Amino acid sequence: MKRLKIISLVLIVVLFVVGLTVFGKPVKDRDALYQVSVLDGLLKGDYDGKLTLREIRRHGDFGLGTFDRLDGEAIELDGIFYQVRSDGVVQRLSGGIKSPFAMTTFFDTDIEFFVRQESDYRSLQEFIDRYLPTKNIPFAIKIEGKFNYIKARSVAAQSKPYPKLSEVVKNQSIFEFHDLEGTLVGFRMPDYLQGANMPGYHLHFLSRDKTKGGHVLECAINSGKVKIDTIGCFIMALPGSSDFYRLEFSGNLNEISTVENTITK
Amino acid sequence: MKRLKIISLVLIVVLFVVGLTVFGKPVKDRDALYQVSVLDGLLKGDYDGKLTLREIRRHGDFGLGTFDRLDGEAIELDGIFYQVRSDGVVQRLSGGIKSPFAMTTFFDTDIEFFVRQESDYRSLQEFIDRYLPTKNIPFAIKIEGKFNYIKARSVAAQSKPYPKLSEVVKNQSIFEFHDLEGTLVGFRMPDYLQGANMPGYHLHFLSRDKTKGGHVLECAINSGKVKIDTIGCFIMALPGSSDFYRLEFSGNLNEISTVENTITK
Repeated sequence: MKRLKIISLVLIVVLFVVGLTVFGKPVKDRDALYQVSVLDGLLKGDYDGKLTLREIRRHGDFGLGTFDRLDGEAIELDGIFYQVRSDGVVQRLSGGIKSPFAMTTFFDTDIEFFVRQESDYRSLQEFIDRYLPTKNIPFAIKIEGKFNYIKARSVAAQSKPYPKLSEVVKNQSIFEFHDLEGTLVGFRMPDYLQGANMPGYHLHFLSRDKTKGGHVLECAINSGKVKIDTIGCFIMALPGSSDFYRLEFSGNLNEISTVENTITK
Repeated sequence: MKRLKIISLVLIVVLFVVGLTVFGKPVKDRDALYQVSVLDGLLKGDYDGKLTLREIRRHGDFGLGTFDRLDGEAIELDGIFYQVRSDGVVQRLSGGIKSPFAMTTFFDTDIEFFVRQESDYRSLQEFIDRYLPTKNIPFAIKIEGKFNYIKARSVAAQSKPYPKLSEVVKNQSIFEFHDLEGTLVGFRMPDYLQGANMPGYHLHFLSRDKTKGGHVLECAINSGKVKIDTIGCFIMALPGSSDFYRLEFSGNLNEISTVENTITK
């Protein structure tokens, strides 16, 4: 009798936990890259928050993005969201805040190697390229390093009617940091995801003491450890908002790379 | 005592079923469109099967695609896979066969309307467009109708080294059907998924008696019922094969639409 009671209790607890896993829906494919919305939608000015940080966190502990109304640059590191505001202040954000565009994955290191030679942003990218088995899948990239120089940007919260991102970046804040440690957090995307995302590297920076950061425009890395997470599945959550529904995507998709080159240069 | 035994038994059964759901991993987001591989990879000749029909079935009961070595056109309807071979024979296929490219979703009707006027393929597409709330998300489309005419194609299994799809379709089989009932099965994709997929309509046909079908090139629908399933999430499973890793995507992405126009015209 007593034993049965105990067994029942244990079963109930196990069932509860399993139930939570199922119905709490943390669909955990650790190899998946989960993206909120379409990058080309952000470029066209759809800055309204779509998913809360709490929801995004369910799909990964590592990533980047921005916040409701384009309020700064987002870095997700070890499951914590950091906001780099346009005044340069870095702060942790809580789960209820929404993001109009974000990318996240559960970071598991598949490839690891060292940067031992001072490299600028372009050389660093070419160096990493040599270690990748292909350019045809996304990779999550984490670089813990010492940096002689970082040039990063952030953007300010916008008001409706939202201007295009190409207009916003004309007034972006530029930060220059010298001789500091920190982490580059981001992704390398394949060419066929142009539009949905953007081909090539997209990295944000967060200093080791979590006081400095931003969307990386240029860098001089002194030395560092590069960790690569191979992505096996690309998931894009699509907005249901009427603002997104009304966007005009059918224009020239090459506009994306043109605008993004303007942004990252 | 007896009651406890019964409760325990019930709990064990429930636990078992829930456990199956979790560890059997049918990640069921019914609103998601699940895609095997990258359409541009198929166009470039990556015809090796990647996921079995059994695995694809876990992600949806409605869709289209092709089979290992490009062996015909695939239609998934009510959870059953039909193969339209290049000789025109239609057969059901079992779960162990692999697909190099497929799209599937759990079909739930969100919008329903009728075609009451004879329409060719282009008019039908324009007619459906009027009922869609946006062009910026994917839609699954099921049209049960009477057709005065269907022009469909299928392709034959290829051998390595695989030719590009633009070469293969030069020898495609063309079928013409008159005065029959059947279902158009497929999707309308947004512009920003060019490369990963292809913008616009992509429909396969299966006759009501399951003896005729193929990739639709032209049609004259007499009357029919159109059912639309709104997609909230796009999932693309990425191949890990060295053949896929070696593909050269960085060329002109507009090539896709050029090739596909050749295919569908």
